[in-house]
Amino acid sequence: MAYRETEMMRERKAQARQRIIECAWESVTTGGFRSARITQIASMAGVATGSIYRHFESREELFAEMFRLATQHEVDRVAQALTGPETAAQQLENALRLFAERALRAPTRAWALIAEPVDPKLDEERLVYRRAFARLFEGAIRDGVLDGSLPEQNARLASTSLVGAIAESLIGPLAQASPEPCEAADLKPNELVDAIMQFCMQGLTGTRSQP
Amino acid sequence: MAYRETEMMRERKAQARQRIIECAWESVTTGGFRSARITQIASMAGVATGSIYRHFESREELFAEMFRLATQHEVDRVAQALTGPETAAQQLENALRLFAERALRAPTRAWALIAEPVDPKLDEERLVYRRAFARLFEGAIRDGVLDGSLPEQNARLASTSLVGAIAESLIGPLAQASPEPCEAADLKPNELVDAIMQFCMQGLTGTRSQP
Repeated sequence: MAYRETEMMRERKAQARQRIIECAWESVTTGGFRSARITQIASMAGVATGSIYRHFESREELFAEMFRLATQHEVDRVAQALTGPETAAQQLENALRLFAERALRAPTRAWALIAEPVDPKLDEERLVYRRAFARLFEGAIRDGVLDGSLPEQNARLASTSLVGAIAESLIGPLAQASPEPCEAADLKPNELVDAIMQFCMQGLTGTRSQP
Repeated sequence: MAYRETEMMRERKAQARQRIIECAWESVTTGGFRSARITQIASMAGVATGSIYRHFESREELFAEMFRLATQHEVDRVAQALTGPETAAQQLENALRLFAERALRAPTRAWALIAEPVDPKLDEERLVYRRAFARLFEGAIRDGVLDGSLPEQNARLASTSLVGAIAESLIGPLAQASPEPCEAADLKPNELVDAIMQFCMQGLTGTRSQP
């Protein structure tokens, strides 16, 4: 009997933890890390502010875990796009496009994940996340050199260039107010994605690609 | 007489301020922002720790000002490389190469300026600095489209892609221990710079360039 109670308590605790993370995520998605408040997250999750610290050592730890889960989701989506019957170059183009389109559809969320100035602990998570994307792209570039859809090149270096180019190109547009996130480059979202893709694919292939 | 004394005091104060900034810079250049200590900077500058706060409101403000001066120096060097008798495309290649080579020659300094996880205030300075580079590159790309050395393209977007590609490609190598900063990509510094240049110039020109 004692055993079952412990099980139930554990499960409840895990559910509360999960709910807190989801509410933190909702809060960040709306206004970025800067405006996310523990008191507000607690109230959204229906728990006392103090009880959040029974689940997480600090505000930073809560946000770091939330960040890991949210970015792992993006990494998984990109990994998914890197499978299929197309050439590796085509898969890579699909994956890069997916990443940029998802970011522009939810600019505040993407700004928070990619570029919002945050505390150093979260910034370190961000470096890990960028390396995860780079590793995915690196594999795809190696595959592309093997299947002949990409020319010989240093795959590791090209992969980090891709991550940098796409993230930095999105920062300007994402930093704008949400209703017109793409005014910065005077482009509609699809034109913006096309222009980013053009630079990236030309960088990889050395062949002029018309957007 | 009172006037001259005030002048002299002002000058001394300005000199002390300058010395504090230089010592902060020396400290960051050696071990990054994380290991830079106010007490150590004060001792290097030959002032009491407390007197640093007569010149700067906080540690963050001192580092932010130091960061602005150091990065303005890099921006000026790149701006300088973007003048001369060559085509705009060639100037741009020279400027990008200069930026990468300078970074690899002083990896700890460059890591601190480009990518070390820092507090949000400094991170915001970093965004300003990246925009300054992007603006320089954007002007050069527009010139290149005009003088025919670069094909028609969205100059703003290509400029941010360049900043991102070059900064991100340097992060891996720079993050390594200083003695062998380029092991990450299994390349010597000049090969690394060549590979970065290849991706960037291909991205701009859509023409295969052999490193």
